[in-house]
This record gives sequence, structure tokens and C-alpha cells, in this order.
Amino acid sequence: MIYTFASDNTSGVAPEILEAIVKANGDYTKPYGGDEYTKEAVAAFAKLFGDKAEVFFVLAGTAANVIGLNPMLHSWNSILCSEMAHILTTESGAVEASIGCRLTPIPTENGKIQAKDIVKYLDVLGTQHHNQPAVVSITQTTEVGTLYTVQELKDICKVAHDNNLLVHMDGARLSNAVAALKCDICDITRDAGVDVLSFGGTKNGLMFGEAIVFFDTKLCRNFLAMRKQCLHLYSKMRFLSSQFVAYLENDMWLKNAQHANAMAAYCTKQLEEIKEISFAYKVEANGLFVMFPEKTLTELRKKYYFCEWEAKRHIVRLMFSFDTPKEAVDELIADIKKSL
Amino acid sequence: MIYTFASDNTSGVAPEILEAIVKANGDYTKPYGGDEYTKEAVAAFAKLFGDKAEVFFVLAGTAANVIGLNPMLHSWNSILCSEMAHILTTESGAVEASIGCRLTPIPTENGKIQAKDIVKYLDVLGTQHHNQPAVVSITQTTEVGTLYTVQELKDICKVAHDNNLLVHMDGARLSNAVAALKCDICDITRDAGVDVLSFGGTKNGLMFGEAIVFFDTKLCRNFLAMRKQCLHLYSKMRFLSSQFVAYLENDMWLKNAQHANAMAAYCTKQLEEIKEISFAYKVEANGLFVMFPEKTLTELRKKYYFCEWEAKRHIVRLMFSFDTPKEAVDELIADIKKSL
Amino acid sequence: MIYTFASDNTSGVAPEILEAIVKANGDYTKPYGGDEYTKEAVAAFAKLFGDKAEVFFVLAGTAANVIGLNPMLHSWNSILCSEMAHILTTESGAVEASIGCRLTPIPTENGKIQAKDIVKYLDVLGTQHHNQPAVVSITQTTEVGTLYTVQELKDICKVAHDNNLLVHMDGARLSNAVAALKCDICDITRDAGVDVLSFGGTKNGLMFGEAIVFFDTKLCRNFLAMRKQCLHLYSKMRFLSSQFVAYLENDMWLKNAQHANAMAAYCTKQLEEIKEISFAYKVEANGLFVMFPEKTLTELRKKYYFCEWEAKRHIVRLMFSFDTPKEAVDELIADIKKSL
Amino acid sequence: MIYTFASDNTSGVAPEILEAIVKANGDYTKPYGGDEYTKEAVAAFAKLFGDKAEVFFVLAGTAANVIGLNPMLHSWNSILCSEMAHILTTESGAVEASIGCRLTPIPTENGKIQAKDIVKYLDVLGTQHHNQPAVVSITQTTEVGTLYTVQELKDICKVAHDNNLLVHMDGARLSNAVAALKCDICDITRDAGVDVLSFGGTKNGLMFGEAIVFFDTKLCRNFLAMRKQCLHLYSKMRFLSSQFVAYLENDMWLKNAQHANAMAAYCTKQLEEIKEISFAYKVEANGLFVMFPEKTLTELRKKYYFCEWEAKRHIVRLMFSFDTPKEAVDELIADIKKSL
Repeated sequence: MIYTFASDNTSGVAPEILEAIVKANGDYTKPYGGDEYTKEAVAAFAKLFGDKAEVFFVLAGTAANVIGLNPMLHSWNSILCSEMAHILTTESGAVEASIGCRLTPIPTENGKIQAKDIVKYLDVLGTQHHNQPAVVSITQTTEVGTLYTVQELKDICKVAHDNNLLVHMDGARLSNAVAALKCDICDITRDAGVDVLSFGGTKNGLMFGEAIVFFDTKLCRNFLAMRKQCLHLYSKMRFLSSQFVAYLENDMWLKNAQHANAMAAYCTKQLEEIKEISFAYKVEANGLFVMFPEKTLTELRKKYYFCEWEAKRHIVRLMFSFDTPKEAVDELIADIKKSL
Repeated sequence: MIYTFASDNTSGVAPEILEAIVKANGDYTKPYGGDEYTKEAVAAFAKLFGDKAEVFFVLAGTAANVIGLNPMLHSWNSILCSEMAHILTTESGAVEASIGCRLTPIPTENGKIQAKDIVKYLDVLGTQHHNQPAVVSITQTTEVGTLYTVQELKDICKVAHDNNLLVHMDGARLSNAVAALKCDICDITRDAGVDVLSFGGTKNGLMFGEAIVFFDTKLCRNFLAMRKQCLHLYSKMRFLSSQFVAYLENDMWLKNAQHANAMAAYCTKQLEEIKEISFAYKVEANGLFVMFPEKTLTELRKKYYFCEWEAKRHIVRLMFSFDTPKEAVDELIADIKKSL
Repeated sequence: MIYTFASDNTSGVAPEILEAIVKANGDYTKPYGGDEYTKEAVAAFAKLFGDKAEVFFVLAGTAANVIGLNPMLHSWNSILCSEMAHILTTESGAVEASIGCRLTPIPTENGKIQAKDIVKYLDVLGTQHHNQPAVVSITQTTEVGTLYTVQELKDICKVAHDNNLLVHMDGARLSNAVAALKCDICDITRDAGVDVLSFGGTKNGLMFGEAIVFFDTKLCRNFLAMRKQCLHLYSKMRFLSSQFVAYLENDMWLKNAQHANAMAAYCTKQLEEIKEISFAYKVEANGLFVMFPEKTLTELRKKYYFCEWEAKRHIVRLMFSFDTPKEAVDELIADIKKSL
Repeated sequence: MIYTFASDNTSGVAPEILEAIVKANGDYTKPYGGDEYTKEAVAAFAKLFGDKAEVFFVLAGTAANVIGLNPMLHSWNSILCSEMAHILTTESGAVEASIGCRLTPIPTENGKIQAKDIVKYLDVLGTQHHNQPAVVSITQTTEVGTLYTVQELKDICKVAHDNNLLVHMDGARLSNAVAALKCDICDITRDAGVDVLSFGGTKNGLMFGEAIVFFDTKLCRNFLAMRKQCLHLYSKMRFLSSQFVAYLENDMWLKNAQHANAMAAYCTKQLEEIKEISFAYKVEANGLFVMFPEKTLTELRKKYYFCEWEAKRHIVRLMFSFDTPKEAVDELIADIKKSL
């Protein structure tokens, strides 16, 4: 299959990651995270986020969100999140099924919820007939490829904390945000006030694996049993943690994201020159949300496996990954021009 | 680490499996199981179980059990299972948390429930105050390394079906059972009357991955959304399904199991010659449950990372894997003899 | 407290009901529904709905909805319902917590979902990332006092059944609908295609108690254990079922509803003559949704305990009950006129 | 029906309670507990337990247990309880379904768990494969009619708290315990260290209604929304709270229990004189667990509706209620003597 821009998970595994996996196969190890690779991965995360944070690994992204959210909530709580939040729109009701709580969608501007809007959803606190808000969940990079600024994140966390709510960040594409904002990863997570972070790996070059980082470590008191109960204790953990060792080494996570972002920018620049084409959202990281003319879409569909984001407005999502070839972008642009 | 006999999951990945993974990294593919590797794996399973069965893949063993059981149950049901069942003793309450139902333990003989005992638990059917039994779950190879015969399985399934219960099989070590019983895999699953099977991979040489096989295909009507909700839809599915392609090719699953069983038999034979040692359960597949003298245990603990199965009776579990070296067995025996 | 129009549950118990309760206190009876009163109540329901329906009793309204819905759903399903559905807006997330599934709101016209809209929510059937629709839930009388016609109900049920969905009716105020439509109660329930009905009692003169009626009796296979598990098996059941005996005798349920509707109509007629006042929804049963001028609202708030339905549009809900005094209506009208 | 000794819930309602209900029907009130009767009931509880405790009402006993336990637990926790605990044996899996956690049965002596046994179940704390114990639940009066002494309760609470577990008391028959122990109700609840108490009403003369008392008031932070979600917010609350007002007035709860206990003692005394009869458990409150000769049992079954507690040992439970007539006891004794 050619690179099709449908998602960053159509890519395989970065070579350094595969190498780390192969290397981890050398011997016998304790299962369930008792191995040396996992210790090393935990130490690498301590370098990134300081030694007060605690990190745990799970196999997949939806799991990282649900398992990270779980200790912050009871079934009678609700989560305030963007109307586009992945946990709301694309996780098959995993939050409701696992936690029992409700997701309350907040309308967005440019894909982002606004700190000032949060309080509008808090008048139900203390009432009898409504789930009690307990968590604000934000996605950085957002589902439509936009970015919260450091200040926006601080404002959201402050409103949340002022009202006794906790903050969860779905960071499936956090690396792309760090790459784009050119900030320290702590600036937009720990230091902004995030309590629990899902730090994505699979979409950025790992074979599988996501990290859940607790900045509020009271929350991870029973994490081990909870992760197992949520079906994500991996017996041969070394094959997950060894990936994270390689991922954090030499800032590979950041370099991979920089490449994806660069390809997105490269594609954007050329699309901006085509007057028939417009963008549904501002391009800030590695995703483009492009409104194509009908005839272009018809042509492209013949060749590309697309993620058609919003049928009504002909919006197609183009995602760029750690190994998107520049030639693939050139070919796409050529195909688009030919269609017009 | 040396081979320690603690569990078959202290081993890494079989070379053919690792090769298949590396090979699967060659190109871009559709995510979430839309790839060619998954089609191939499904086809390979159709060869094994016939084309009326349906197969799906998940990442881990507890998940295979819970996700396979889920469509057979509501929260007000109960599962009848052995008092030693892995789903009861070692899955951190995943069944209760995901499904809400209760597990009802049945006493065992040689690690196995008896068909005739099942009916004793059915007098609550139709009552108001008790969970309603809906599933019998059996583990083959059992948690203590013993085997249900074909007839025993048929008897259990008949009693279950006669009473409108369904049958689930936890087959984390099913391959070892097939290898030991020298039967067709269908004899002890589909044809015995099993409705849903967890067919294990990770413990027998895979990096990760278990298959859920539905022989009663009405039950998998909403499987796709359910698996996602249960946190086990894997985006880069090719790296799971390619393992199963290799696993089923040339009966690798069976050969791996045969080696493990052979090593277990080899070890058993030598232990039987040591008069201070006895066995808590009959050795039938790849697990030994050995009662060591206290002094032997004290010595062995210094060198080996053990699974001490039952402290009171000094029972140690010795598990043999697809790549347990014969030399490791010899060394263990020597260590034991030295201790006496 | 004066009659305040806040809700039909600010009223107490109809005298005949209280009498029935007192009478039921005469002797010792079997608990948990094994008593003669419960047999009598079940027989009375068989007269109403035919002997193919099955009826069970629970203590409260939200329970009737959740327990009635439960056997139709797994956690990976979704319920299609009006954006105003009581199960969605005012039950504190009980559906999500008990069943784990999601509620999908459908925009309404005059408080009612349209049959033609249902199919718009079915394109997710068979997909991996979304809850699978399994039930359409409708409220008759709706939450804003409007009524589905017999034909509208038939259309909704047909679309649902054609797509393998089941139909649930929240009939907390079903009696008022029957009174208003002057139809047989079966016309808008069983014969329209409803599979499970919550038939309300508490809001229409009972002390407590709701009936769940299964027209699709396959669904109530494990009802007894399920009701207990859902915390609604009442030990001294006679005090619930005796109420239903009195309620169904001599069509008391209908007469109570007729009075409430008549009072609502009486009030409507007079309000319509006041030009400063308008209605947010068509008045069809026992609820009025009135837009008052700000100054009227300010005055009324001093005296009345109100249900302010929608703050922004100054909409107040006025509910009429089985024992709303005509004088209370006259007094309200006088108070309103005085304020203008 | 004659008084049959099957359960204390075969009795109806105490006359003072019925009177209170009838009286509460006089006017219109705010629903959902906003009424004056509820304020009065809360004040009456403050007199009993001090004003630092918080009390809430629910409709039924299993609900009181589950809703009281809920805020102390997540699904990955477990509850340590007696092997005979009502929450384990007779509530249709309500705890597992509502909370998702597991119940771990502890063997009993004379129906009671021992403080020293609790620690045996705590070695799983911090492990990955097992539910994490978080609550000890004790039943006072126990399911077999025995009583924890003040010291036994203190010891249990101390062990629990020393290990960061909370203590729940199922007090469905707490009144009988207070009557038997002749202690202050606080001695065996608040002051012994109980964190959450279910204080029973229905079995001791109420029509319906149980109180949940939080001594650890941090736990009731979201109680209102939680109770609604758990299906136990009662709209016409006055008919529940007015019962509790009457129940606490003039120690009616205690007098009712004293009568039941006295009848149990009266029956015991006479049974002890019959040499063919023995007791399975020490009689300490209002329940007898009697081992009858087969021929007696056969005779009694013809006339009485019994609770046959344990078939194998011919144990019959005889329960005595607030209104058990002395004549009924005499008649039972005569029937027994006649059978021998």
C-alpha cells in the first residue's frame, strides 16, 4: 500500500524501535514489568517529567485514556470534554462501559474548549438529578490538529482545580504538540497543571504502547490491580518497555514528531497555493483538515484510502507520520492539481 | 536471567514469530484489522476450525477471556468455573468489573470440574436472590497442568447445554493439551461443544496476541464495537495477525507445545526418581506442581525466581515453555539433588 | 404548602390508594411478591394488556426505566432517545451506570422524535469505534407535555424493528396520554409495537410504585434476579401491589389522569386569553410550558415553588395532578393577572 | 396467613407507622426530600448519632447496603465479609453489578468474622493480579442471629483502619442488637469505629425505608446524585421520612426490637426443654436456627411457610418480629411437641 494520509497508524514501526524489540528478545526475564527494560523505561520517564511523577505502560491508546481516567472518577461523576474528544466520539463508549460515568461535550473554537466555558457546566454540582463533574479532559494535539497554548492550558487547569475538578490530558499526539510549540514537554503537562497524562507512542513510531503519567500520584495508589482489571497488564512487558527506552533515548519521540509536523507543513504550504482548496482548521501540528472540491475528492478516492472527517463539508483529514515520505506528499499534490 | 521455571511467559518470542513481525513492517497498511495479514490469519484459522467459526484477535490473555465471555452474559448472570480458574483467582476481578456478573467456584478433582457437579449449582435458576448461571467456563490445560479428556469435555458441554448454559474455554495453554492428548484441536473444542474459545498465543511463543474463536457465531454480532469498548482494538493489527499466520503455519503452535510438554515430561521423570519429592497434581502437559522438602526449597529460592503455588504445602509450580533448554532442566535437577 | 404546580409529585396519595394500603396491613403475608395482592395486581394488568404481556413492579420511576431497559442492552449498545428524554437529562446517569451503554440524543419537534430521523443514527451499525444502537426509547406523554399520535408511534416502532432495534416507552405519564387521546391503552403501547413499557403510578396518585410491562416476554427471562440486583425487589410487596389493584379498579388511573388533564386545559384556556403570555409547547395533556413576562415571573416566585424549565426563555413548567384543586388554578390566574 | 416465622418481613406495618404515613398525606410538599418530614427525620437521627453524622434515606435494604458501600470502593477493590454475609449470599450480585468489586468471604465462628482473620486477606495489597481490599463489612445482628460484642467490633474496626480499610455495617437488624446488648446504639456503631451504617427499618415495623448513616462524612460528598443514579431517590420522600420520625420517637425502634427479641427468647426457652431439638447457633437476638428431627420438619412443613436455612442439617430459621403474637409461639411449640 502507498502512504495514504488516512492516519498516522497506517505506518509501521520506526527502525530503532524494531531494533530495540529484537534486542529485548535475548534472554529470559521476569514477566509483568518485573524486568530490567521496564526499570530502564521508568527511569527514562523520570528524566523527562521529574521523579515525582509515576509512569505505567499499557498496550493501546483507548486503554491509556480509560485507565488514566478511571481513578479520578466514580460512575456518578461526569467528564467535561470537547465535543470532538476522541474519548467521546471514537472509543465505542469505553469510558461509560468501564467507569459508568457520563461524558459532557463542550462546544469548541478551533477544536479547543475554552477555560471560561467550563464553569457553565458546574451548576449541577450538589444536585440530585445529574452526574457530578469531576474531570476536565483535553486533547493535545487536538483531534483536529490544533494546539492549546501554554497559557490556555494553565487557564483550563486553574478553573478546573479552583472547582475541585481534576485534569486529564489525552496526549496521543502530545509529541507533535511539543515539536510544534517548541516548548519543554513539562510546560504543557505537569507545569500547566495536568493531573494525569496519556503519552502516546503507537501513532509516533512504536509498534504498540502508551504511557500513563500521574502527576497527582495519590491517584495511582491501586494502579497495578486496576490496570490488570482493565485488561492491560502485559505479561511480556519487556517488549513494550524496551520500545519506550528507545523512544525516549536521543529524543526520538521528538524527532519523529518533528518529521511528521514538517511534512504536514510542507503539504500545507503547497495546498495553500491552490485556490480551490481551503482548510477547516488551522494547521498547527501533523494533521490537515482539508475541504476539497467534489471533483478532486472523487478522483482522490480512487487512489487513496482516506479518512473523510465530515461528509457534509467534504472535509478530509490528512495525517502525517514519523515516516511519511516527502515523495508521497509531492505525489498527492500532483494528483490534486491534476484533478482540477 | 537463567530459565527459572516460574512461568512460560518468562520466555521471549519464537524466532519465526519475530521474523514474521519484522517482515510485516515493510509497508503501509490499513489499521484496525483492515490489512492483508489479518485476512491471512483469519483464513488460517478457518483451516483449523472450519469456516463456520469466527475468529478475532486481542492483545492479552485476560482480555481474551473477558471479551470472549462478555457477549454470553449480563450482570445478573453467573459463571460456573473451577475454584482454581484463572478468571477467578488471577485476573484482578476483571470479569466482575467488565461484565458485573459473579464467578461461582466449583470444587475440583485433579484441577477439573466434574459434569455431574454442575447441576448442583442450577437450583437458583428462576429465583430472585441469586445470580442466574449462564456459562460454564473450563480451562484446558487446567491451571494445575491437568487435562480434561474428550469425553469429560463432552459431558460438561452436554450438561451445560441441556440447562441452557453456554460453554467457554480458557485455552491459554490449549496447544499443550492438543499436543498431550494427540487429538485434533476440534475434538476438544468445537466438536466437544465449546461455544467460545480463548486460544492462547503469548505463553507459547508469540510476542503478544490471543485469538477468540466463536463456534456459536450468534454471539459475535457486535464483536467489533465490543472489543474496542473493552480496550482491545489494536490499531497496528498487522503486528498481531502476522504472528498468528506464522503460528499456524506448519503447526508451529503444536511443535512449540510439544517441546514444552517434552521438557516437562523429561523433568518429571527425573523428579520421580527422587524419593523426597512428590507431586500435587498429575503431570499431563507443560506444568509441574511439585512438593519440595523445606531445605530444597530454601536452597532453590536463592537461585531461582519461582512461582510458589501454595505456601502451606510447599508446592512450587514449574512451567516449561516452547524454548526451555534441556540444560536448564538438567541444572535444576542437579541443584535439587545437591540440596538433599 | 399550597398547590404549586412544580410537579405532579408534590401531591400526596389518592384516598382510594391509601385505603388499599391500610387494608393490606391486616395480616401476615409471604414477602417478595409471593402474596395474594401481587397475584391480584398481575391479574388486573392481564385484563388491561392481555395475558401475553408480563408485568413486574418496582418502587420508583427511574428504576422502572433502567430495569426495563436493562435486558434489551449490553454496554456496547446505545439507546436512541429524544434530546429531552428524562433518562438522558434527569436521571443522574443511571442508564450509563447500570447498563454501561450510551444515550444518543435525537433533536425533537414539539418534544417528539421523528421516525424518519432514526435511520440517520444507524450508519454506525457494524463499525468498530461506536456504540451499536439497539433500542429506541420514547416518552409518552413527552417531557414537554406533548403526545405522539398512534400513527407516529407505529412509524417509530416500524423503523426500529425493521432495523433490529427494540422499542422502550417511558410511560411515567402514560395515563395522561390515554386520557387525552381517548384511545385504548393498548393502541399506544402493545399494538403500536412497543416492546417494554414503564407504566407510571407515583405521579398519578400512588404513594410509590411503577409497573414494567414486557410485551416481548423473551426479555424478562431473568427478570426476578435482575430486579433484585438493580435494588428494586421490595420485601413487603403487598404494599405496592395493593396500590396497583386499586389503581386499575374502576379505571382509577384513567380518572385521575382525566382530572389532571382537565385542570391543565382549564388553566390553558385562561392563560390563552392573556396576551402577554405564550406557550413553548402545545398543551396536550397535564403539563404547560409557559413563557411568562419577567415581572410576572418575579411576582410568582415569591409565592410559588416552581419548576423553571428553561431559564433563558423564561419558561416555567406547570404540572397538574390527580388532585389539583380548581381553586388553585383560579388563584394562579388571579396572581398572574395582578402581576401584569 | 398465620404468623409463620419465615421472616420478620412477613409482618405488616406497625400501627404508629401507618398513622404517621396517613398523617403525612395531608398537604402538598416539595418532592425529593425537600419536605419538612425529611428535615424532622434528619434532626431525629442527629439526636441519636450526634450532629457530625449524616443520614440519607433509601427505599430498601439491599439498596442501603450497596449505596452505602459504593462511595468507599472502586471496581478494583474488594470487600472482606463473612461467608454468610447477606450482601454476598442473598442480594443477587448487586454489589458486583453496581460497584464492580469483589466480595471475599471470610469463614466465621458463630456467624462472626474475627478481627485476627482480617490480616490474612491483606497480603494481596499492592499486587497486580488481585482486587485490593478496601472495606470490611460486618452484619450486626448477624445473618444467623448472633451478636458482635462491643469489643469485637472495636477490634475489627481497629484492624481495618490500621490497614487503611473502611468499615461498613449492615444493620438491617441493628435495633435487635441494641435491644439485646442493652447498650447505646453509638457504642456498637459510631464509637466502635464504623464508617458507614445501614440502619434497618422495614424488618422492624416500617412499611419501607432504610437509613444510611455516614460517620465518615467525607464519603457522602456526592451522595445525592449517587443515590439517584442507584435508583433510590424517592420523589414522595415524605412517606418515607415520616415513618422514620415515628420510628425514632419514643424509642419505638427499640421497643419493637425488644418485643421481637423477647418472643425469640420465650420460644428458645421452651425449645431447649425438648431434648430432640438443638440449635445451630447461639440465640442472641430475634432469630433462631433450629435443627428439627426429620419427622417434626415434615409435620411443620404442612402448616408453616418456613425458611429452611440449611437443608443438609435440617436447619430451620425462625424469625421473630415486632408483632409476633405470643400465641403463635405457643402454637408452634404445641405443634412441635405433637410431632414427636
